[in-house]
Amino acid sequence: MREFDEWYNEVVERAELCDKRYPVKGMNVWLPYGWKIMRNIDAIIREEMEKTGHNEVNFPLLIPESFFKKEAEHIKGFNEEVYWVTHAGKNELDERLLLRPTSETAIYPMFSLWIRSHADLPFKIFQIVNTFRYETKMTKAFLRVREIHFFEAHTAHEDFEDAERQIKEDMEIAERFFRKLSLPFIASIRPDWDKFAGAHYSIGLDILMPSMKALQVGSIHQYRQNFSIPFEIKYEGIDGNHYYCHQTTYGMSERVLGAIIGIHGDEKGIVLPSSIAPIKVVIIPIIFKGWEDKVMEKCRSVEEELKRIGIECLIDDRDKTPGNKFYDWELKGIPIRIEIGPKDIENNVITIVTRDGVKKRLPENEIEKIEEELKEFDERIYEKAKKLMEENIKRLEKIEEAEGIVEIPWCGKEECGKEMEERLDMKSLGVPYSHEEVDGTCPICGMRATKLLRLAKTY
Amino acid sequence: MREFDEWYNEVVERAELCDKRYPVKGMNVWLPYGWKIMRNIDAIIREEMEKTGHNEVNFPLLIPESFFKKEAEHIKGFNEEVYWVTHAGKNELDERLLLRPTSETAIYPMFSLWIRSHADLPFKIFQIVNTFRYETKMTKAFLRVREIHFFEAHTAHEDFEDAERQIKEDMEIAERFFRKLSLPFIASIRPDWDKFAGAHYSIGLDILMPSMKALQVGSIHQYRQNFSIPFEIKYEGIDGNHYYCHQTTYGMSERVLGAIIGIHGDEKGIVLPSSIAPIKVVIIPIIFKGWEDKVMEKCRSVEEELKRIGIECLIDDRDKTPGNKFYDWELKGIPIRIEIGPKDIENNVITIVTRDGVKKRLPENEIEKIEEELKEFDERIYEKAKKLMEENIKRLEKIEEAEGIVEIPWCGKEECGKEMEERLDMKSLGVPYSHEEVDGTCPICGMRATKLLRLAKTY
Repeated sequence: MREFDEWYNEVVERAELCDKRYPVKGMNVWLPYGWKIMRNIDAIIREEMEKTGHNEVNFPLLIPESFFKKEAEHIKGFNEEVYWVTHAGKNELDERLLLRPTSETAIYPMFSLWIRSHADLPFKIFQIVNTFRYETKMTKAFLRVREIHFFEAHTAHEDFEDAERQIKEDMEIAERFFRKLSLPFIASIRPDWDKFAGAHYSIGLDILMPSMKALQVGSIHQYRQNFSIPFEIKYEGIDGNHYYCHQTTYGMSERVLGAIIGIHGDEKGIVLPSSIAPIKVVIIPIIFKGWEDKVMEKCRSVEEELKRIGIECLIDDRDKTPGNKFYDWELKGIPIRIEIGPKDIENNVITIVTRDGVKKRLPENEIEKIEEELKEFDERIYEKAKKLMEENIKRLEKIEEAEGIVEIPWCGKEECGKEMEERLDMKSLGVPYSHEEVDGTCPICGMRATKLLRLAKTY
Repeated sequence: MREFDEWYNEVVERAELCDKRYPVKGMNVWLPYGWKIMRNIDAIIREEMEKTGHNEVNFPLLIPESFFKKEAEHIKGFNEEVYWVTHAGKNELDERLLLRPTSETAIYPMFSLWIRSHADLPFKIFQIVNTFRYETKMTKAFLRVREIHFFEAHTAHEDFEDAERQIKEDMEIAERFFRKLSLPFIASIRPDWDKFAGAHYSIGLDILMPSMKALQVGSIHQYRQNFSIPFEIKYEGIDGNHYYCHQTTYGMSERVLGAIIGIHGDEKGIVLPSSIAPIKVVIIPIIFKGWEDKVMEKCRSVEEELKRIGIECLIDDRDKTPGNKFYDWELKGIPIRIEIGPKDIENNVITIVTRDGVKKRLPENEIEKIEEELKEFDERIYEKAKKLMEENIKRLEKIEEAEGIVEIPWCGKEECGKEMEERLDMKSLGVPYSHEEVDGTCPICGMRATKLLRLAKTY
């Protein structure tokens, strides 16, 4: 674990994803390469949001204290974590403003103005913004930071059932989204004592990192009417009466990038699924005396062909040895490198090496097969990650030491869940979203248990 | 003027660009349509930045007070305008943090770590972020807000000459950028008493709004070594000695959108150049009894054809009259609408109406000509805007009442410039960037004047 943490901290720097030397703790600088990857991740989110009829908006960062305080549970959950703006210029503000830790209390006053009738529902928006949480635990690039690159979708519905349908759609979005990143995940309904501040219930989307700690990479919340009542979000029904909306949210953050680094990376560096790699293929000329022109000519024709079929690529013609170039691009996680040397020219082939080490030759008139190779690469890194996760989800019948994620029959009582947490020194992830029924015995109280509680060490 | 202001405030709302009812003054909510247009503007900036070798980064929002105070002039300029974070959770912070009003003092501590040798130069980055200024003047959507959607490029160079070359490149970027938005602008070297806080000199890029007030839509600054010395941004030269870098910045903001609204808009609503219109062509079925299927079929085939050639379009099949649909899309500034009715089908044509009122028929097998029509539309709105600007830049020889932008021979003395400002009740925009030489007389002191001072009422 110690080893993984060290590797992680180092690779984030060496791959030039972010710079942690900015003079405010937990606030890092996104470097060009890291930012490009994050923007590619955002592009996948946007695509999913568009497909599902969510409109993108952008809300102000600052929230007046009085609005923040409208939902009692919400403020309890975030009160210790918010940054307060108290002055502007030399004036003390009449009312303190806080930097959004999440945007419920910024968005819902506007929902109450925007939503009038059942015809406006469902109402679905999202935004991608910077949020702020004064974390007291140790900070870690992308995984625990104080300025967070954040995605949040907010929806309003006529009734509980329609909000539940939204949560199903969110789960489908999550399936497609994480699949494109070759990231296997599990979904668990968080125990009541660990749900989002103000939620009716929360679903956590977790990934098992190689450190054997679970990382929450997304969350979906059913708010019921917990926010619509204090924020007065009402609609006129077909019957002419007014009703409070039911609401949901779906949130993710730069932790997704942290998961990609952690799950796919290896001793050579990071490994990027092709969906987000800023460069999908790097072409490396292997130059021998007398072959300079021919090799470069072939490199350029391969580049042209790849661009024609829409594959981002680059010829690395820097004045370095091929070995040094291999090293650089492996560190940066480029899915495929193409080597082109005299032998490839003589045999009318190109040599490809995938980031996970598969080497093969392709006839040069079949370059379009690179697309398939990228797909297979994505598939392999997904399967590898899935195997790691599945091997480390363990069903226990009693409380015993274990690594990874454990699933234990649970009677459902908070005290039993909390005792499991304490004795295992783990945190509850919750009950599987699949609602799998079991017929077991709670190892704490000995009562009949029909559900499982998932626990793990967590980030 | 009063009339223009009212029209502007109204159209911003009616076209659903932003919502000004958010409970913090000067901080508005970007609505989906406005945000899409802004993101399209950002995409043009990004394209220009990529073309000119600037890398995109993303810096933290919060700046420690001690860093903010390193450059004396800079703090004088911004001290009255910054928002201060003083508390986090229940703790008072050891050091106050400010919300960036601009990012020099966030970025330059990192420049001093990143830049080592002449081989690192020129060093060119940019970011698109939210910035904050506590404006005391009346706020106005996009034109004067307290949370600003902001673009800023920062560069470092070996010497003054190379920094000057950067400024020439910035001017070329500005030319291309504003041309794509059909916006004519003028560039003026701001007088010393109005340059950016900390700059050696500043170039303002101004647009003349129909209110006859000038709007600064961009600025380019030559910093010389004013920041590199306090922030210790040094490089090792070829000769092995260490030198302070020379620096420049180029900034723009959501004001660009304000300018587009103001310059191109008319009594029907906003008018969008095709480069940023989220929908370039809207197709409106004109349905008569018995023709429903045929009309819709033709609409769909036109839509398909337009999509094939890469033109964003939409069939408006809402249950509304064509007249109501025209009204909606004119309000939203869509460049071209296509009307398809029985007559068009009979004659194998489509009827197009551009947002500026040109109506024509195109043979239906020449739909690709829409592309040309869009270009011509962009050209026409540019020429119209240019005419407005040129007609309202007036050369004066003495101080007399005038509207728009005036150019007056100026001896170059601050006191004379300031007296012109006072007597005209205008602000100096500065000396034309073209450095046009004149042979005139300063109307204030009667001395020989070889340059012009531009003045205008300003936003």
